[in-house]
Amino acid sequence: MFADNPTDIVAGNQHWGHATSKDLYHWVNQPIALFPDKKGDGIFSGSAVIDVNNTSGFFPNQADGVVAIYTLNTVQEQTQEIAYSKDGGYSFTKYDGNPVISINSTQFRDPKVIWYAPTSRWVMVIAYSQEYTIGVYTSPNLKDWTHASNFSHYGLLGLQYECPNLVSIPMQGTTEQFYLLSISINPGAPLGGSITQYFPGHFNGTHFTPVDGAARLTDFGKDNYAGQFFFGTPDNQPPIGIAWASNWEYSQSVPTGQLEDWRSAMSLPRAYELTNATRRPYQLISKPYDLTPLYTSQLASSSSLANGTVLIDYSHIPSGALYFRATISHIPFINTTGTANFTFTSSTTGESLRGGFFLGGDALFWLDRSGIRGFAENPFFTDKFSTSNPIEASGEWAVEGVVDRSVLEVFLDGGVQSATVVCFPEGRLDGMGWVTGGLNDGVEVGLEVWGLESGW
Amino acid sequence: MFADNPTDIVAGNQHWGHATSKDLYHWVNQPIALFPDKKGDGIFSGSAVIDVNNTSGFFPNQADGVVAIYTLNTVQEQTQEIAYSKDGGYSFTKYDGNPVISINSTQFRDPKVIWYAPTSRWVMVIAYSQEYTIGVYTSPNLKDWTHASNFSHYGLLGLQYECPNLVSIPMQGTTEQFYLLSISINPGAPLGGSITQYFPGHFNGTHFTPVDGAARLTDFGKDNYAGQFFFGTPDNQPPIGIAWASNWEYSQSVPTGQLEDWRSAMSLPRAYELTNATRRPYQLISKPYDLTPLYTSQLASSSSLANGTVLIDYSHIPSGALYFRATISHIPFINTTGTANFTFTSSTTGESLRGGFFLGGDALFWLDRSGIRGFAENPFFTDKFSTSNPIEASGEWAVEGVVDRSVLEVFLDGGVQSATVVCFPEGRLDGMGWVTGGLNDGVEVGLEVWGLESGW
Repeated sequence: MFADNPTDIVAGNQHWGHATSKDLYHWVNQPIALFPDKKGDGIFSGSAVIDVNNTSGFFPNQADGVVAIYTLNTVQEQTQEIAYSKDGGYSFTKYDGNPVISINSTQFRDPKVIWYAPTSRWVMVIAYSQEYTIGVYTSPNLKDWTHASNFSHYGLLGLQYECPNLVSIPMQGTTEQFYLLSISINPGAPLGGSITQYFPGHFNGTHFTPVDGAARLTDFGKDNYAGQFFFGTPDNQPPIGIAWASNWEYSQSVPTGQLEDWRSAMSLPRAYELTNATRRPYQLISKPYDLTPLYTSQLASSSSLANGTVLIDYSHIPSGALYFRATISHIPFINTTGTANFTFTSSTTGESLRGGFFLGGDALFWLDRSGIRGFAENPFFTDKFSTSNPIEASGEWAVEGVVDRSVLEVFLDGGVQSATVVCFPEGRLDGMGWVTGGLNDGVEVGLEVWGLESGW
Repeated sequence: MFADNPTDIVAGNQHWGHATSKDLYHWVNQPIALFPDKKGDGIFSGSAVIDVNNTSGFFPNQADGVVAIYTLNTVQEQTQEIAYSKDGGYSFTKYDGNPVISINSTQFRDPKVIWYAPTSRWVMVIAYSQEYTIGVYTSPNLKDWTHASNFSHYGLLGLQYECPNLVSIPMQGTTEQFYLLSISINPGAPLGGSITQYFPGHFNGTHFTPVDGAARLTDFGKDNYAGQFFFGTPDNQPPIGIAWASNWEYSQSVPTGQLEDWRSAMSLPRAYELTNATRRPYQLISKPYDLTPLYTSQLASSSSLANGTVLIDYSHIPSGALYFRATISHIPFINTTGTANFTFTSSTTGESLRGGFFLGGDALFWLDRSGIRGFAENPFFTDKFSTSNPIEASGEWAVEGVVDRSVLEVFLDGGVQSATVVCFPEGRLDGMGWVTGGLNDGVEVGLEVWGLESGW
């Protein structure tokens, strides 16, 4: 479920939209899940849980009752409310004891609730937005909430905290389990507008303690905001999250709306873990959630390319969406320099969306959407993004990603860096080029490309 | 003094260059201050102090002895050395007991030394770069150093910490004094490459404790790195700092070098204070250090403009440099929307460098260097920068700044936000436009513009 305006293509009149999926890629639209009762009010962000043990008392004879926890936004106040569903989340009834939390604030929103088994309590994280504070509340029954602690003034402040999430997350390659607190900030992100940061740490049922004082961002692009983790995935497995692929600086004016009757898209669903590499302590790893259900035709597969060019025409892929993975391997270790670049082009307009590695040392990786015409004039639509990539023990640099019409998502070096970047080509992107040059002898280049099925 | 390569226009063969000034704007080049003894070695960043009390013993009969503390970079190690000057800093003799600190590390550099009167000790902050740690050392005499504490894994990590600075700094409008720890990161800054972050806090002679866990950046542009505070400015007055106006992502390839025989420039000298506004807790304020010595002709002065356009031809200003200050006043409070934009243009090439406010709520402010031809194709040369500006108690939005051929620096709302942005116009910028539109009745616009004298 997601915040949605059913009557317009800009924010306002906020409802909870609803869609269902069995694989997180093919979605079926459902009727609106939650309506505000009064004109001018809005159902803002929140979360949903399955109340297996009927702690709420809403579900006397079932183990699959769903409770939604959300912010009701009115002119006077932002309060937290709940609604329950006895039909597996298709239709909801608002609790007659709402609000369940009211603190007389207009800047108090976006409750995310999880179940914390060791104390048999529900735990809510929620933003006191303009106080740069995440509140932790606990409840035995989803109705009665007790304030337990605050996590305050950590990381990048922006001008507001929004959409906190708390989730159990494994350390890759170990049996260690941590908690991850993510906080979205908007406005005031370093690249402008909105972005998501995260804090690896420990949670004891009432207090979150980060492993260190570092601020870490989920993405080096600027179109990944308000990410939510799904409820109920097993501990010791990577939690799955999905975000909004846009930025409040321009989300309401991007040119999708008039043509498609929708304005924004969600990011890929991603699976998350932590790593603890020397140069990347407690870094979040993200990878696309299993894409194989979408694979159609394989368009390239080679593990032994060297300096050279690969050109792929994918105009015959109906969805216009591709998955690609490219590697530059330097095993045994070769301290190569050179470049390894990809370009997505439109055969009708000549537009291009580009990116690549500038190799050597802490290799730079860049993305450039300045070759796409649509929306390029908007002064907030930053054109170029970049990050750096130390040589990891893996002995290779790697980029994988999905380009899907108006969204490009890339994942570097096994997901230790990622970026979500939207763009609005006037002509459909239908060609991919992969060009490497200046690599030392012995460096091997691999490339794998798949056409992807439409999610519609 | 500054890191310099006297034999080329890229980094390497690092010496300490030297220039002197009475007003921080007019500089006289001096002979190179410090040379490495061996080919392949480098004199890296550091700092200098005046040893008034002859704690070092280098200056038996004088109170103006200067000691430089720097990193000697060799293939094997980065060690800390000192050199002393008996002629006011013009010529230096290396201490024969060097190195003064050696820990057998290749990633240990950039010592910044201050005097801490309560303990009568010199205090050094220095980066264990790839361990994301700032070490604090103390010394009675600048020769014998004792490790006192570490400040580790705070703020944005990038891939390296560099150039830490520790300085006493006042809280604006109070008699309260804090310490500011600044840390430069490179590579891996949020906008790519290098940037400077800071931590307001307390220092007791051995340990630095930040006021909170927040990460704060000095600039919303990407060309402000390795800033250094001058030694010996009085407590209770704003410390003065100067930074390098570039970014390692492209500093070695920008097109200044071939024409001018230099490659990079320094930022404006800035005076710094802290503020503690509700939406901007413990935010650093920076303003250009007194520019009035540079004022030549006044090109605009009005406090009662409204919606409209002001065009200024400044082709007759020999330096090509301008100071400007624009205000949008909403006293009594008027929740205005609208735009207030400036454009610097070249009459010969039509190039433009633009910026402005997108007003309303937490007003957005943007800069766009995409209209400048030179270097625009470089994939790391980010075109657009932006930030947000809550309505402050001052009742106005304000932007002031200096445009000086290849560098634009802007300061918003009294300096609570700032950006340093380099650009390389093919034609000299010689016109300024200031355009406001959509402002509510009663909103007043002010504009003041001065031509500036050359610093050469």
